[in-house]
Amino acid sequence: MNTQKRMAALRASGAYLGGQDASQAHQHIMRPAFRPAFHAQADGGNPACNIGAGQRCEHALVDAELNQRLYDYERTVRGRFRGIVDTLKAISAVQHESDFAERAQRLAQDRLGYALPQELLDDAWVSGLDMRALHTHCIFQSFKNSVDHTDADQAPWLDRMAITPEFLAACGYHTVDITPCADGRLQGLVPFVFRMAPNRNVYLKAYAGAMFDVEADMIDWAHRELERLTGGIPGGESQNYLKIAVYHFSSSHSHDQGCAFHASNDKQAVESAKQRLDELRVAIERTYGVGAAPAVLLVGLDTDHDSLRIHLPDADGDVNPYRYVDTAELYRETVALSAQAARAHIAQRVDEAQHMDGWAQGRGNMDAGMRSLVLALAEANLSQIEFVIHHHQGRYSVLGHDEEFICAGEATHYVQMRNKYYFAHLDTVEEGAADMDVGIKIFTGLNVRHGLPVPVLVHFYYSSRVPGSRDRALKRAKRVKAAIESRYPALVARNLLTCRMALSDRFDTERCVFVDEAVADAGH
Amino acid sequence: MNTQKRMAALRASGAYLGGQDASQAHQHIMRPAFRPAFHAQADGGNPACNIGAGQRCEHALVDAELNQRLYDYERTVRGRFRGIVDTLKAISAVQHESDFAERAQRLAQDRLGYALPQELLDDAWVSGLDMRALHTHCIFQSFKNSVDHTDADQAPWLDRMAITPEFLAACGYHTVDITPCADGRLQGLVPFVFRMAPNRNVYLKAYAGAMFDVEADMIDWAHRELERLTGGIPGGESQNYLKIAVYHFSSSHSHDQGCAFHASNDKQAVESAKQRLDELRVAIERTYGVGAAPAVLLVGLDTDHDSLRIHLPDADGDVNPYRYVDTAELYRETVALSAQAARAHIAQRVDEAQHMDGWAQGRGNMDAGMRSLVLALAEANLSQIEFVIHHHQGRYSVLGHDEEFICAGEATHYVQMRNKYYFAHLDTVEEGAADMDVGIKIFTGLNVRHGLPVPVLVHFYYSSRVPGSRDRALKRAKRVKAAIESRYPALVARNLLTCRMALSDRFDTERCVFVDEAVADAGH
Repeated sequence: MNTQKRMAALRASGAYLGGQDASQAHQHIMRPAFRPAFHAQADGGNPACNIGAGQRCEHALVDAELNQRLYDYERTVRGRFRGIVDTLKAISAVQHESDFAERAQRLAQDRLGYALPQELLDDAWVSGLDMRALHTHCIFQSFKNSVDHTDADQAPWLDRMAITPEFLAACGYHTVDITPCADGRLQGLVPFVFRMAPNRNVYLKAYAGAMFDVEADMIDWAHRELERLTGGIPGGESQNYLKIAVYHFSSSHSHDQGCAFHASNDKQAVESAKQRLDELRVAIERTYGVGAAPAVLLVGLDTDHDSLRIHLPDADGDVNPYRYVDTAELYRETVALSAQAARAHIAQRVDEAQHMDGWAQGRGNMDAGMRSLVLALAEANLSQIEFVIHHHQGRYSVLGHDEEFICAGEATHYVQMRNKYYFAHLDTVEEGAADMDVGIKIFTGLNVRHGLPVPVLVHFYYSSRVPGSRDRALKRAKRVKAAIESRYPALVARNLLTCRMALSDRFDTERCVFVDEAVADAGH
Repeated sequence: MNTQKRMAALRASGAYLGGQDASQAHQHIMRPAFRPAFHAQADGGNPACNIGAGQRCEHALVDAELNQRLYDYERTVRGRFRGIVDTLKAISAVQHESDFAERAQRLAQDRLGYALPQELLDDAWVSGLDMRALHTHCIFQSFKNSVDHTDADQAPWLDRMAITPEFLAACGYHTVDITPCADGRLQGLVPFVFRMAPNRNVYLKAYAGAMFDVEADMIDWAHRELERLTGGIPGGESQNYLKIAVYHFSSSHSHDQGCAFHASNDKQAVESAKQRLDELRVAIERTYGVGAAPAVLLVGLDTDHDSLRIHLPDADGDVNPYRYVDTAELYRETVALSAQAARAHIAQRVDEAQHMDGWAQGRGNMDAGMRSLVLALAEANLSQIEFVIHHHQGRYSVLGHDEEFICAGEATHYVQMRNKYYFAHLDTVEEGAADMDVGIKIFTGLNVRHGLPVPVLVHFYYSSRVPGSRDRALKRAKRVKAAIESRYPALVARNLLTCRMALSDRFDTERCVFVDEAVADAGH
């Protein structure tokens, strides 16, 4: 069954409720609610699951139960956004009724689970209903709902993640600092693609093109190193900091769906990320002494189906753009094997890859902790590959951008999901202008050309343990908000950019609290 | 003799060569070249030296030889700027001569010691001489000359400074991080007012109103703390980091020559600085554990005559806005005493002040190291008070702003002198906008209203030990330059803002090298 036919069948079955096409990317496709038993596809729809006819894509090392729970989670979160457009259309249809405001609130409450701003409804009789303002309100409110439900939503899968803080500690890493590209397609990286439990020791700082700021990274490293040396990290004495850079590419559309920052030039994407990692290591060694450098790992993500290229460090911790294992290949090679045989095969392939081009022979193999991590990451990712096979037809139907909003500042760690938002890690727009510009360009296609504003959430963390920290974070948020608005005056003038602010406490007294909703600063 | 009469006498004697009044602040007053023996002034021209008739203002604890050397240094450095306007006028007078370019270059070389840009001279016959461009060129070139002569210029006094790194280490401090106000009148603070040897362990980060960035300071603290813990600071095991905040006021013109950021409200200036120090201490303690906080000191500078209010910490290291010693008072009280008696008196006054208002009795006295530092600072400052008495008529004739240019980014530590430049410490204009705005406002009065551009030097340090560091510093400089230019478009459009960039290596391979003068990046 080819993709077109399958979609037609799904539509006929009623499981497919959308009716949109992929170009209407601000609307959302409802995935079928059953778990289809996929068979090998002669048409090559999924490169990982290209196996013998009649064979099922069910890998012995895949945690099918976890996949089901993650899929339920994904549907729950996406469900909070999916109905927004339809609900607003229904509300629009009754805007000339005499009891309009009341009916609108009832519709919103029933379908979306929250109220709409009363004054927008009350004023509708004067100059019509402000659909733009309502749409933006709903995007942020649905996101806020998801944040507020984080614990309940994530409980079913959080403890089942393959790569736990304990496992990372056993590999020798007290902190994992991950820089993916800011691209929304990478925003599910930690829980979905890596199967890593999001927690306070996993830093996520996305930059366009994965081009992280070396000096800013040195500061984060120094902070953790100081905590480690002063006993603030239990068991940290013998552990290291791990920096992971994640570039991306599209195996099916390498020339137009790769990394926009690198103009979809995959070679440039991988070599730039590798160079930045080298710079970070050298900068720390030259500043704090030989041996101080963090461990680094270079990973490539195929955004078509979430498989990975894991680049293998050598004994010195150096990564190489051309020495890697490809998890899609590993999946294909081991899908018919027992768990034990598959594990052995993966280990063998990893060890072979270390000697690729004879390059590592002189340099030695990576250390045992890194090898454990690489093997675990490769194995964990097999589950994600099968997740995409079973729940997204083997390749995401929306290959490109489909984000709901832009998040600028520090990423909230509460909701991490593919194409939920475009995330630009920044302290100032002056430094993060390139990242913001890419985001605005994406949303010009996604929203502005449909007449919808670009929703921008400026989010920062503070520490409730440090007096004044919340005030300073709020000041920072206000400064960044003003800078964003002044960078895109044409959009602001046309009401096509709506910027809001939210703060979170690192110690969880507040989670992504929208500033204008917060009780006055007293008490913080 | 009152000030007016004294000025008239100086003019008549030919020692005063300016002919400007203080409002023509872009031009420069030549100080008399002799060292006058000042006597007690009945008219109270100098509050420190208000002693019996016939008595000389020569304090036993003052290093008169050091004062002479510092005065020579001041004249040398100011001399590089003083002749600019006259030289340019002389050049202007010959601009219609046939051998103009040649004569102009000879005049510049003879009087200023450097050449002018040839193309500006060659093009003069077409559209007249671009005096603005020449003036800005000279300001930067004279500064660059001063930087290049730093070692020779400072050699006579550098080893004679009262407060050396060794003394600071003996007091228990491995690093001193000083935040004065960005105001140019505070830019001679370290070598002149504090008599502290400028060196790599003395950080100078000026902010408008002394309102330093707590998070940025935490980063600097963490950097040094990490170096200390990893053995990078010899003898650092038992030493601490010292943060000094320096607010300022004008005793003679408290309502209009105080701190512009605090609207000349001295109470607000001191309380804000104290609060910021508290925030820094608490932020570090709550983040890195009890006992981690740096030592802090709060100091007020009377910009009329460079005397200090040194606020005394208690046993917990807390400073108090209202518990201080005033060095102008100490000078007056001890000017007639022997060195030994003066020292004993100062120590007694410091110890009495610790019990001011009975406040400290419950809190205990400051520790021995801090007490040593406070005594040394008070004593060192007596020399600066007498320096102003002898070399600046007891009170600066230009009480207000008189800076040559704005320095934005990181301060060069090569030239530190009162009113040489306005300095805004910043990483981004977005964060430092308030500091830049104050600077631009000052130079609107100093330069723009006379038709002269505001010269802005964007300066950053890099580390030649860290590959890529210079390139990144250059990128940062370019970004900040662009942000400054885009913040003041009206000035840029009228050619009234000239921004240049310079980089320095922390390890001295380059010192304030103007980027367009540098050999191409190759080799770094």
